[in-house]
Amino acid sequence: MPSKPKADPETIEESRRFAPRFDASGLIPCIAIDAAAGDVLMMAWMNAEALRLTLETGFVHYFSRSRGAIWKKGETSGALQRVVEVLTDCDQDVILVRAEVADRAGTCHTGRATCFYRRVPLGAGPLERELEPVE
Amino acid sequence: MPSKPKADPETIEESRRFAPRFDASGLIPCIAIDAAAGDVLMMAWMNAEALRLTLETGFVHYFSRSRGAIWKKGETSGALQRVVEVLTDCDQDVILVRAEVADRAGTCHTGRATCFYRRVPLGAGPLERELEPVE
Repeated sequence: MPSKPKADPETIEESRRFAPRFDASGLIPCIAIDAAAGDVLMMAWMNAEALRLTLETGFVHYFSRSRGAIWKKGETSGALQRVVEVLTDCDQDVILVRAEVADRAGTCHTGRATCFYRRVPLGAGPLERELEPVE
Repeated sequence: MPSKPKADPETIEESRRFAPRFDASGLIPCIAIDAAAGDVLMMAWMNAEALRLTLETGFVHYFSRSRGAIWKKGETSGALQRVVEVLTDCDQDVILVRAEVADRAGTCHTGRATCFYRRVPLGAGPLERELEPVE
């Protein structure tokens, strides 16, 4: 196999400079993982200020698109997300946070421990199909 | 503590009907997890057709925003993502796929096993800061 061409450190993929790429609305998606259990808690959005507050305070902050405001996760529910590690992806247009959660039971606003509690059955046919609860 | 109000099965959070909410561009974010190792491989976008192909073929398809085309993940690199499970979140505006990856080494287009290979250091100060490689 030919050897892989040497990566150009000037590209956004190889750069050591953090230059998060916000979308046209000034937002970047953030995936939150439970640092202990390893599973995905939720995906929400950050603006630059929510990201800055997350890095500065060590508690995950998001930007609510519906409310148009920054929100410290868990401030009301108690399911605070204490940052263990913040990562970004190759294109620097996604954030991934590994966090310790104070109260897993309140992670989702529906009162569940994760936002991902329904499975989409596989198979042909229209997208609209019956969801299955994840036990 | 007052008991939680009974969930309304007609809401998108409690509904058993899959009704994915695509954004204004017709896209929905998809998080891909390695079903065996449990870690996050990547986040990319799907349109309705990519999602339908994923459910129908059992191989993850995405929509490339830069190329404006559907792409079967791994068709070129070999890092095919065979679907184990597809989940959606409370608001049905995120997809999460647990997949078996044929060749982890080629998951990221940079030739890495995940797109999340750089850490953002915590602390006060401007967002622009030096990234740390994840070993």
